[in-house]
Amino acid sequence: MSITVVGSVAYDNIESPAGRRERCLGGAATYFSLAASFFADVRIIAVVGDDFGPDQEAVFKARNIDIRGIEHAPGKCFLWEGSYLDDLNSAKTHLTELNVFACFEPKIPAAYADSEFLFLANIDPVLQRRVRDAMPKVKLVAGDTMNYWIKDHRPELLDVLKDLDVLLINDTEARMLTEEKNLVKAARAVMALGPRYLVIKHGEYGASLFHKSLPKDKGAELRAPAMPLEQVIDPTGAGDSFAGGFFGYLAAQSELTLESFRYAMFYGSVMGAFACERFGTERLQQLTRAEIDERFHVFRELTHLD
Amino acid sequence: MSITVVGSVAYDNIESPAGRRERCLGGAATYFSLAASFFADVRIIAVVGDDFGPDQEAVFKARNIDIRGIEHAPGKCFLWEGSYLDDLNSAKTHLTELNVFACFEPKIPAAYADSEFLFLANIDPVLQRRVRDAMPKVKLVAGDTMNYWIKDHRPELLDVLKDLDVLLINDTEARMLTEEKNLVKAARAVMALGPRYLVIKHGEYGASLFHKSLPKDKGAELRAPAMPLEQVIDPTGAGDSFAGGFFGYLAAQSELTLESFRYAMFYGSVMGAFACERFGTERLQQLTRAEIDERFHVFRELTHLD
Repeated sequence: MSITVVGSVAYDNIESPAGRRERCLGGAATYFSLAASFFADVRIIAVVGDDFGPDQEAVFKARNIDIRGIEHAPGKCFLWEGSYLDDLNSAKTHLTELNVFACFEPKIPAAYADSEFLFLANIDPVLQRRVRDAMPKVKLVAGDTMNYWIKDHRPELLDVLKDLDVLLINDTEARMLTEEKNLVKAARAVMALGPRYLVIKHGEYGASLFHKSLPKDKGAELRAPAMPLEQVIDPTGAGDSFAGGFFGYLAAQSELTLESFRYAMFYGSVMGAFACERFGTERLQQLTRAEIDERFHVFRELTHLD
Repeated sequence: MSITVVGSVAYDNIESPAGRRERCLGGAATYFSLAASFFADVRIIAVVGDDFGPDQEAVFKARNIDIRGIEHAPGKCFLWEGSYLDDLNSAKTHLTELNVFACFEPKIPAAYADSEFLFLANIDPVLQRRVRDAMPKVKLVAGDTMNYWIKDHRPELLDVLKDLDVLLINDTEARMLTEEKNLVKAARAVMALGPRYLVIKHGEYGASLFHKSLPKDKGAELRAPAMPLEQVIDPTGAGDSFAGGFFGYLAAQSELTLESFRYAMFYGSVMGAFACERFGTERLQQLTRAEIDERFHVFRELTHLD
């Protein structure tokens, strides 16, 4: 089955304890689609500028990602610059140039209309809503968001949440969205806003899956670990790669059971771990499906008792 | 098999979002021994004051804990006062009165000499060393420590670490001890100081087990979850209860394999979760073994794929 993803394609200037890289191909939709492409067909909706050429297109094409939804606009690509010098868990943003992204009006190619899975990466909830409405036939819709939309665009965000099947956010965002410190209470409050499933990402400590049916005595449906990495080169895109692995795995299943969502959490963690091993999308570009399956088994060993 | 534990028996004045309690029976050795008593015979070495009477003794006796090593000294018990109003993950200490604990000279009853397991709870490393040396026949020694000893008593602490089989500390302590931000690198550095096994506790995110043989590609031997709790009443003693469940489980095994240590991590997490459900030791006092096994299965479900 195929996934349509809408979000940013960007360039990133990244500084981490491992060094500095200029103009890495990045953006949430880029990381998501590369990670998801190992599991399902992916179609991307984004906008790029004059500085996006055949070399960048080749990155998507190498993974069979449908880029007919990438619109070329006059100007430059979204540019982000940030560093992880003090804390690998959270980036310090130095610069954000929206450029062509400032006037992004997602256009959905007719060929994407039969996608059964839709991922709304972290963009203006007004645009998320518009894309969601334009694809009424999808069977599973997941989305991401961030502190900026939670704080300053709450009504628009709430309007998206009510039609979302799965929301993926981090601890801070879950607490900010619900004004509830306790994560289990926050999870219940988020799901009351719409999503049947909620993934809360805990950075280097993994992620928790919650489902609306959650029994009182259990707290979460599943806790998936993050890989304890001896060398984190660049955490940029780890969350989007998690989402890609998670949603990609789901899109590849013939039936969506609670157990599929549990497995999806582990595949999400696997893809998030790979993303951190090199700067930008480098590791995802070189990855093989065999390496993914091997890493999945390591994650299983890391958490399972005989 | 039996465990000897040396550490504090104290009174705690605790304030959390759930309320306030005065003079709860507490101290690391109290929590540890109550938690461990569900798995093995426990013998305690500690010092108490005139304000420790039959009511307090009864708490230990109810769990068949050998209290012949509790010395009664003139004066008052160690008193700690703290609150968790801002952050349930870390206590704000308002008051510490060492009282009789200030002159603690651990005395080991002759009847304890055949203990095969020794737990050195968080006390002055000079005392930890002394108890360790006085019990040369033990087959497994585990210990805990804290920021104060790491910062200001490093040589004495290093002297304890070199003869420790298992160290249990938290993220901050592991980083402080090794001056290494990355937890996997910190784990390797700690184990180079002595312990074959290392448990790093991540608060509400669970704990990681490391073993010296750790292969390069795995990061940790096991990641055990913490129970996502909807209501944390009082986190005091959660770490000591984890240690009690962990070490108690090990002491109950006929053979100590890597798999025993993996299971022990889950039992540690289970006991840590119970400790948070009521103020002080209240929950541990009321607990049954059946409840522990039931919770163990919930933890398994929380982390295992079919």
